[in-house]
Amino acid sequence: MTESDSAVEPAIFVISYDADTLQENQFSQVSSIESLDDHRLTTWVDVRGLGDGSVVQELGDRLGLHRLALADVVNIGQRPKVDVYDGVVFVALRMVTLVEGGRLHWEQVTLFVGANYLLTFQESHDDCLEPLRERLRKGRKLIRGGGPDQLATSVIDAIVDGYFPVLEHFGEKLEEFEEQILHENRTDTLAALYLAKRDLSGFRRATWPLRAALTQLQRDEEDGFHATARLHMRDTLDHVMQVVDVNESYRELAASLVDMHLSIVGQRTNDVMRVLTVVSAIFIPMTFVAGIYGMNFDTSKALNLPELGWSHGYLFFWCVCLSIAVSLLVLFRRLGWLAR
Amino acid sequence: MTESDSAVEPAIFVISYDADTLQENQFSQVSSIESLDDHRLTTWVDVRGLGDGSVVQELGDRLGLHRLALADVVNIGQRPKVDVYDGVVFVALRMVTLVEGGRLHWEQVTLFVGANYLLTFQESHDDCLEPLRERLRKGRKLIRGGGPDQLATSVIDAIVDGYFPVLEHFGEKLEEFEEQILHENRTDTLAALYLAKRDLSGFRRATWPLRAALTQLQRDEEDGFHATARLHMRDTLDHVMQVVDVNESYRELAASLVDMHLSIVGQRTNDVMRVLTVVSAIFIPMTFVAGIYGMNFDTSKALNLPELGWSHGYLFFWCVCLSIAVSLLVLFRRLGWLAR
Amino acid sequence: MTESDSAVEPAIFVISYDADTLQENQFSQVSSIESLDDHRLTTWVDVRGLGDGSVVQELGDRLGLHRLALADVVNIGQRPKVDVYDGVVFVALRMVTLVEGGRLHWEQVTLFVGANYLLTFQESHDDCLEPLRERLRKGRKLIRGGGPDQLATSVIDAIVDGYFPVLEHFGEKLEEFEEQILHENRTDTLAALYLAKRDLSGFRRATWPLRAALTQLQRDEEDGFHATARLHMRDTLDHVMQVVDVNESYRELAASLVDMHLSIVGQRTNDVMRVLTVVSAIFIPMTFVAGIYGMNFDTSKALNLPELGWSHGYLFFWCVCLSIAVSLLVLFRRLGWLAR
Amino acid sequence: MTESDSAVEPAIFVISYDADTLQENQFSQVSSIESLDDHRLTTWVDVRGLGDGSVVQELGDRLGLHRLALADVVNIGQRPKVDVYDGVVFVALRMVTLVEGGRLHWEQVTLFVGANYLLTFQESHDDCLEPLRERLRKGRKLIRGGGPDQLATSVIDAIVDGYFPVLEHFGEKLEEFEEQILHENRTDTLAALYLAKRDLSGFRRATWPLRAALTQLQRDEEDGFHATARLHMRDTLDHVMQVVDVNESYRELAASLVDMHLSIVGQRTNDVMRVLTVVSAIFIPMTFVAGIYGMNFDTSKALNLPELGWSHGYLFFWCVCLSIAVSLLVLFRRLGWLAR
Amino acid sequence: MTESDSAVEPAIFVISYDADTLQENQFSQVSSIESLDDHRLTTWVDVRGLGDGSVVQELGDRLGLHRLALADVVNIGQRPKVDVYDGVVFVALRMVTLVEGGRLHWEQVTLFVGANYLLTFQESHDDCLEPLRERLRKGRKLIRGGGPDQLATSVIDAIVDGYFPVLEHFGEKLEEFEEQILHENRTDTLAALYLAKRDLSGFRRATWPLRAALTQLQRDEEDGFHATARLHMRDTLDHVMQVVDVNESYRELAASLVDMHLSIVGQRTNDVMRVLTVVSAIFIPMTFVAGIYGMNFDTSKALNLPELGWSHGYLFFWCVCLSIAVSLLVLFRRLGWLAR
Repeated sequence: MTESDSAVEPAIFVISYDADTLQENQFSQVSSIESLDDHRLTTWVDVRGLGDGSVVQELGDRLGLHRLALADVVNIGQRPKVDVYDGVVFVALRMVTLVEGGRLHWEQVTLFVGANYLLTFQESHDDCLEPLRERLRKGRKLIRGGGPDQLATSVIDAIVDGYFPVLEHFGEKLEEFEEQILHENRTDTLAALYLAKRDLSGFRRATWPLRAALTQLQRDEEDGFHATARLHMRDTLDHVMQVVDVNESYRELAASLVDMHLSIVGQRTNDVMRVLTVVSAIFIPMTFVAGIYGMNFDTSKALNLPELGWSHGYLFFWCVCLSIAVSLLVLFRRLGWLAR
Repeated sequence: MTESDSAVEPAIFVISYDADTLQENQFSQVSSIESLDDHRLTTWVDVRGLGDGSVVQELGDRLGLHRLALADVVNIGQRPKVDVYDGVVFVALRMVTLVEGGRLHWEQVTLFVGANYLLTFQESHDDCLEPLRERLRKGRKLIRGGGPDQLATSVIDAIVDGYFPVLEHFGEKLEEFEEQILHENRTDTLAALYLAKRDLSGFRRATWPLRAALTQLQRDEEDGFHATARLHMRDTLDHVMQVVDVNESYRELAASLVDMHLSIVGQRTNDVMRVLTVVSAIFIPMTFVAGIYGMNFDTSKALNLPELGWSHGYLFFWCVCLSIAVSLLVLFRRLGWLAR
Repeated sequence: MTESDSAVEPAIFVISYDADTLQENQFSQVSSIESLDDHRLTTWVDVRGLGDGSVVQELGDRLGLHRLALADVVNIGQRPKVDVYDGVVFVALRMVTLVEGGRLHWEQVTLFVGANYLLTFQESHDDCLEPLRERLRKGRKLIRGGGPDQLATSVIDAIVDGYFPVLEHFGEKLEEFEEQILHENRTDTLAALYLAKRDLSGFRRATWPLRAALTQLQRDEEDGFHATARLHMRDTLDHVMQVVDVNESYRELAASLVDMHLSIVGQRTNDVMRVLTVVSAIFIPMTFVAGIYGMNFDTSKALNLPELGWSHGYLFFWCVCLSIAVSLLVLFRRLGWLAR
Repeated sequence: MTESDSAVEPAIFVISYDADTLQENQFSQVSSIESLDDHRLTTWVDVRGLGDGSVVQELGDRLGLHRLALADVVNIGQRPKVDVYDGVVFVALRMVTLVEGGRLHWEQVTLFVGANYLLTFQESHDDCLEPLRERLRKGRKLIRGGGPDQLATSVIDAIVDGYFPVLEHFGEKLEEFEEQILHENRTDTLAALYLAKRDLSGFRRATWPLRAALTQLQRDEEDGFHATARLHMRDTLDHVMQVVDVNESYRELAASLVDMHLSIVGQRTNDVMRVLTVVSAIFIPMTFVAGIYGMNFDTSKALNLPELGWSHGYLFFWCVCLSIAVSLLVLFRRLGWLAR
Repeated sequence: MTESDSAVEPAIFVISYDADTLQENQFSQVSSIESLDDHRLTTWVDVRGLGDGSVVQELGDRLGLHRLALADVVNIGQRPKVDVYDGVVFVALRMVTLVEGGRLHWEQVTLFVGANYLLTFQESHDDCLEPLRERLRKGRKLIRGGGPDQLATSVIDAIVDGYFPVLEHFGEKLEEFEEQILHENRTDTLAALYLAKRDLSGFRRATWPLRAALTQLQRDEEDGFHATARLHMRDTLDHVMQVVDVNESYRELAASLVDMHLSIVGQRTNDVMRVLTVVSAIFIPMTFVAGIYGMNFDTSKALNLPELGWSHGYLFFWCVCLSIAVSLLVLFRRLGWLAR
């Protein structure tokens, strides 16, 4: 549990709307947000940047939020979870972006769903919620007609939908690794595969608790969510379960690839060994024979290297060598070592 | 979650029947399907091809289907699931076909089970439901006497029955791999085994959630299924559980085969190493000895290579070589390296 | 789900009994079994061989059995399960026999437990129920006093008891493998171990669902089993759980043995490599030295191989060789390569 | 499920007590145990040795014990379990002793807890209950004040406490293996580690079901245990859970050690290979060069081995050798093969 | 379950407070602690050091604590757990400190939460509770306003917060191992990794049961905790679950690193082997050829080594050698052995 060391200055974006009207403002002071007092409107207060703890504190005071939930906002690295404090639903989850080099960037997003407001906190200014804001502005009936619960569901849904391109990226990466491991012989594949496994493990840590949290949110009658929002939440939950499923099967494939690599490298080492053994076993004895006839014993003595004086001595030498080579090759063929 | 990029033009096949009559038509316009208004008949609207989203939309409007369920129809790659929206049961599952080269082709099938209709969506024109249609046409009492719930159960059952030949195919493949790994020494086995593992993993992703979904469908009293359909659903669920069991044990066997391969290759490398070591260890020292007597030291000096001048020098050389070879062979026999 | 391709002609064995009387007959016609109509007797209809589907059909018609359960009888390869259809309890389970060569032979047994009858179907004529029949004939009070539920429990118990000798056989096999892997160096152990793993996996597939099925049967109040039969069922369930436990621990040991084999072979390869490396590293440099003094440079030139003309040249050569050997041996001893 | 083949003759030890008095006897006849009829006393009948089935039968008849429970007494190798038969609680569990050579000796202990008696059966005469008997004799209030339920709890607790020294023994063994695998290079470690894994697996089979059984015993209101005994049972259950935890983590460490061994041996083989390769790759080309100049071509022809006649030929040879050696050493250093 | 052999003399630190006043004392006699009798104050009795069992006993007698709970205090090595004895909540958990050399030091902390007191036992004098005491002294409203339940929650929270720096330490260590395994080739990495795995396993044993215990404490209505304390407990539970999550993913990464190491070492061995094989396979045949022409056959016979007398014999030799080398290099390039 690390305190956010992000130096991003908070900016407060506020959208107030009902089915007919919509107002969009940016504030620097919490006290200036008037629409929070208008209970006919739904107000979305979106704080981007956690660099100034006082903004969190002031919003918390103004809306009467629980001290423990506020602490969770600034302590980034939370487990995805849903807590209900006196009718206010607190949701923490993790937003993912694919940054350059194929690495993942995780950001914590926290939501407070009140009677007439949705309060969201993000670590930085960039997010994946712009399409959602566009739908709000365009007055899509579904979202404008609902309250903060419907809006919160849409925010969560947008964040979860952001998981899919990342998963697809992993899918492509795994196919690449598969190709490299099964058919090429590259030394850097394993390091890249390990990093992918680590990322998939991080993905898992973001999605498993989210599944549990959303299941609770979708079922719990006491959280004040309406039937429509609840139906949408079920749909979002389906998406999370799909992410979890695919992630699990990717993790499994990654583990499987490591096992395969080990087996394939073992097989290749075996192939290399066989070549070495065949060549060595054939030439080492023959070299020994050649070495014999290179010795300088005094051939004037009858018993010393008589072959050297034979008129067909050289031929005899080749016969010996060939018979060694042939008999070993026959042996190796029987052992199946000559097949590839 | 991928939008269907299938360019297959939708074709609408409609079968309306009761116990006594049966009518079969193909429509191009949703509005022309009149039997949907006749509540005495059961109407099966079978849309094959998702190339035109407007067909889905019009059918959804006409039958009052939920927006979220309709979105699931066109987003292929759904998790198998059962949802109930206002009395209409929505089922998503996956149909498998074995295509050339032993690879699997997955297609999404979605069902809407209403009071007097069954609406099915498939990705392409080919399916495994023709035998079922034949049974309908032949007026088999069991299926003609039931309503849309009975028909839906039969459709799901037919799709699940399509899993068995695929499983059998995997079974045969695994026996092949077993043979290759345990008794042959082929280099391409591992790549094929990996692909099979990946396919089995995909199979799992299609069947595990289906088990949960059908269990829910079979138990849930609110989905409007009658007792007969429910009994049939229990039977289908049994089949799914059987598929899950067999699939799990195949996955296990596949993992076991990879482990075995590693162990067997290790064993083989060990065997190869032993041969290399025995041959090298025997001939390298002997070659060294031959090398000694091939040196050109000035033998006129008494201390330089006196053996060269011995009358039995060559014999002496052989004795040295033989004693080296014999003592090493004895050593290796003791180490157990000469046994195969 | 395979249709039974067994060509075994069905034989119908019928035992009717109450506490006092017992009659035993063999029929070829279903219609001849009169005792089924006598509700004072308990009738055990034992059909051995599924070669003729009409026998199953006629019995089903006569006793009013459900179409789906009858389909399960002839489709061998069922998952063990318990289903209740209108007061008739249907049980499917698997009977195992150890055949020559240590392989397992599985057979499907299905039971229908009605108010006054027990109907069993077996794939072939041989079974493990003869001791049970003997107890029936001898009029053992426990079993003769009970109804079809008690008889069914006894049949299931006898089949489950047949699992124990098979498990013991696996236990002995594993000890053999243990011995071979840890202390011998046989190449065929792995293949045999893999087959044992496959068999244990099949065993698991037969027993896990059985545990769930019997638990349900033992608890379910609606299946019409009496307290005594239920107590016996609890005992049988205990046996099944014991089988499951032992089977799991055997599976674990088998997996452990594969890991051990890999590690031990790695260790052995390392030992072999060390010997090769020590021998090569010592003799290769020395052979090089011998090769130097075997060169034919013109020694009349002062700088060419002056050692050849030294009077202690040969001694010098041996000093060089010995110093190479000794220093390498010291190095290898420090590396710990000379210890076994 | 093996029939006890233990030939140990049963001896019946009886202790009868209430808070004030205690009597201790040894009987050979079941009928002589009179205190069983005195309902004011708690009677502990401890049968050691299962060599004579009639003792079990007579005790069963006298106390009205259930046939199935009595069968479990003589069939050793039971799963730990708790069953309630007509108010009599039947408990089966396993007692462990560490015998010479560090192997485990398991023994089955079965308990019947009745209204005024505790009946225990052990396989042999030695047990770990002597300290408990001593506490009984010394009249410790806690145990003398309670009934058979309290006594049974104490017996179970004593048996469970006997698991701890065995666990500690495993802990020490694992540390030894750790030392051997990480820092030494012994060939017998793996075999010993495998045996420890097998023992830990057996330990698991004794403790997991015990946890479930005691949980049931501690919660179940119908077993007639009083609040005090129930509290003590909770404490014993805590100990069992601790044993299960530690056992699981030992199993994990053992598996981890096998993996580590494999990795470390792989590393060592790699180190050995690098030495062999460096030595071979340097000396084999140099030996080839020496071999060239040892050839006997007719140097009177100008093109044949002119180097042999050069006045600095020998120097030239050394330059070639050195440049080969140096360039290879530079290459190997770059590959990082010279570092240890 | 080991008796604490810690010789640390117990010191009793007492803090009594209500919202307005706070008193802090150190006692050597249990009987001197008067504030325990003042029910308007909350009294925290903190016993540090378990060297003298009588202190535990006297406190137990004075506060009427249950014998079994007191036994758990002095038996260190308890599983984290929560037990309720007659309204007194007993909590056992483990406190971790990172000591020099990166090893973990575990200490048992036990808490008794009574109506007006909190009693804590620690193994030694140092602890991580000083910041909490500071907050007490400074009169922070939240903690001074609550009773013993709030104080106990804060103590548990402080201990759990102590897990995070240790986890971060493991995270850094794992990144180090990752670097070493993927990019360096050090022999001591595996031993360090194994120790880290063992520590993570110990961490798990401390946190998994804690999660279960705190969940129970947070839900159980009978333990007398107030709503505020309960909310704080939920927050602490969140932290524990985060610790569990991170720990699990570290354990997974550690296991993954061992697998990776094995694969990478296998790859490296394969690379080394290929170099050895290429060099040997090229030079061994060439050396054989050189050996042939170093033989001393009597060249006066026409058939003996006629090449030696050729005027281009030496050139011929080089042609043979080059053609051997080139053809082998071409072969190895085709096998892909020359690529790195």
